[in-house]
Amino acid sequence: MDVLQLQDYPIFIGPCEEALSHFLGSHPYGEVFVLVDENTEACCLPRLSGVGELAKAVILRIQAGETFKNLDTCSGIWRQLLDAGAGRRGLLINLGGGVIGDMGGFCAATYKRGMDFVQVPTTLLSQVDASIGGKLGVDFHEVKNSIGVFANPRAVFIDPGFLDTLSFREVRSGYAEIVKHALIADAGLWNALKTKQELAALSWIELIPPSLQIKKRIVVADPFEKGLRKTLNFGHTIGHAIEAVSLQAAGPLLHGEAIAAGMICEAWLSFSAGLLDRLDLEAISTYLIQVYQPQPLSASNYPAYLQLMRNDKKNEADEINFTFIGPPGTAHVNQKAGEAEIRASFAYLNGRLGDQGLG
Amino acid sequence: MDVLQLQDYPIFIGPCEEALSHFLGSHPYGEVFVLVDENTEACCLPRLSGVGELAKAVILRIQAGETFKNLDTCSGIWRQLLDAGAGRRGLLINLGGGVIGDMGGFCAATYKRGMDFVQVPTTLLSQVDASIGGKLGVDFHEVKNSIGVFANPRAVFIDPGFLDTLSFREVRSGYAEIVKHALIADAGLWNALKTKQELAALSWIELIPPSLQIKKRIVVADPFEKGLRKTLNFGHTIGHAIEAVSLQAAGPLLHGEAIAAGMICEAWLSFSAGLLDRLDLEAISTYLIQVYQPQPLSASNYPAYLQLMRNDKKNEADEINFTFIGPPGTAHVNQKAGEAEIRASFAYLNGRLGDQGLG
Repeated sequence: MDVLQLQDYPIFIGPCEEALSHFLGSHPYGEVFVLVDENTEACCLPRLSGVGELAKAVILRIQAGETFKNLDTCSGIWRQLLDAGAGRRGLLINLGGGVIGDMGGFCAATYKRGMDFVQVPTTLLSQVDASIGGKLGVDFHEVKNSIGVFANPRAVFIDPGFLDTLSFREVRSGYAEIVKHALIADAGLWNALKTKQELAALSWIELIPPSLQIKKRIVVADPFEKGLRKTLNFGHTIGHAIEAVSLQAAGPLLHGEAIAAGMICEAWLSFSAGLLDRLDLEAISTYLIQVYQPQPLSASNYPAYLQLMRNDKKNEADEINFTFIGPPGTAHVNQKAGEAEIRASFAYLNGRLGDQGLG
Repeated sequence: MDVLQLQDYPIFIGPCEEALSHFLGSHPYGEVFVLVDENTEACCLPRLSGVGELAKAVILRIQAGETFKNLDTCSGIWRQLLDAGAGRRGLLINLGGGVIGDMGGFCAATYKRGMDFVQVPTTLLSQVDASIGGKLGVDFHEVKNSIGVFANPRAVFIDPGFLDTLSFREVRSGYAEIVKHALIADAGLWNALKTKQELAALSWIELIPPSLQIKKRIVVADPFEKGLRKTLNFGHTIGHAIEAVSLQAAGPLLHGEAIAAGMICEAWLSFSAGLLDRLDLEAISTYLIQVYQPQPLSASNYPAYLQLMRNDKKNEADEINFTFIGPPGTAHVNQKAGEAEIRASFAYLNGRLGDQGLG
């Protein structure tokens, strides 16, 4: 069991049953609740059957999927807590991916002005991205995470064993954040990753800790996203818009798939701004296209992308705000781009995909 | 202009135009929003017409009243912020009573994970009670303030001039918190207040600062309500239940009217527990009955009161938790009472009102 100690809480990395059992045994909570969706109830909850302290836990159920990450679902969670007579001394265990962690954490942080919660992230994305930083919330009127708070869990339990329950696409989605962490903060890691075409050959238990270390370093330096932490937004301004629009379509993208496309566009914007050189841009695009095989962006969606970016929470006043990258391992926050430039970045991605198709 | 400096923000006491103008002039907010209801828009907003910095402010409107302190109204506020393109660098000014302050503060604290807000409380209740402590939130399924957070405003502007816009009942409602502050923490203040039958003869500009000082001392010692701060709950466990039930009735009670009745019941529980002597109980009951002239509690509502108390956020596990008082100026947190005892306290109040009627 590896332990990454943050300022406010520990992250346990390894098989989680024993660590969770020890945590519950040493904290006298009045009631314990476990939030699951139909997937984590079927695939992940049985793996906690050896945790005797959970025998009396109340299971709270929500429907799986990003489309249910909204205030209606929060109302259902709050209602279940209220009906179960939960007091402020209860504990909520969020067992699932980013939606469960973000929404369950938000519900706990706002229930009776705050009950304790712990995160048991079951996807690679939530393990490397959501387990540090205290960002909680839900989507609202198609704007991602527009209602939320910053609040920390009491502990996080990262068990790579849960990754066996995921599809290839889900694992690949989480991997996008590992690539992002390398691009903004660790050139050595990027140089190692860019040679790996075959995700199945990667060892997650080895890749998760260094990725968490990068995020820890950034978040500790800037807990409330005033400056350095914005480096983590690389790929996300455009990526969030692509993700949101795709949710309305027959084949919605997973978060990391959208972020991979967003990183290609924002790498081009970084190049266009003179911060990233052409060889690095080409290497990043080539690698992300090989791994993620994105679809071209439809020009009919451009207005929707731009409107969503204007509403993005990183957008201040009227300008659209980005994080660009410089040479791999470096990033630049508070960069601006106008609509024409952003459209040109979409064209770059589509052009690369055309090359790809012809090549 | 009197200034009470708290750890995290200042409270300005006096005519607010100049102080607000100076605050806005020295903080470069991207956008400024003012949250009002139909009452404060008509009676209070015109008093800010001299604040030039507000010329471009966007007015956000909600319906007045405790019944609208819910998540639906929050959704309306968040939607208006989103539609106006509010970024995280905006400022929300909450102009109104406790509902506006609690709900507007909650909406600001959760909009894009937190935008700044300031409170301009326009009722005596919100001036003496809500301006310190950071408790924000809304009611949910008839449980008061069950969804919320702790977060501090950037500043509070208390202008006793706004009290001229209030009815006698509203001023008297706020006065209940001043009496409560005296009973739990300041025997000298209680001895002075209990001789005052005529509220119109009181000087609010003189009474507000000492009342705020009491609350400041308590909240600084215990910001997250782990211990001492619970003393502020005196009268509120039963009072909140009486208030909630009254909201369904034709003649709903104001908060302080319900709390005055709650203080009488909880003073009796304090007496019954051997903490308060009979003479003090009688003095408290006599004074509160003279000032508030409460109606008897209907026995048909007892089950609803008890159910609401079980759901109260101060209730931990299965027991019903109270704050009792000892000799005036002292309080005891984490006191318990069972259903029979609570019903007896209702009977005491009703009996005193019967005496009153006969006397």
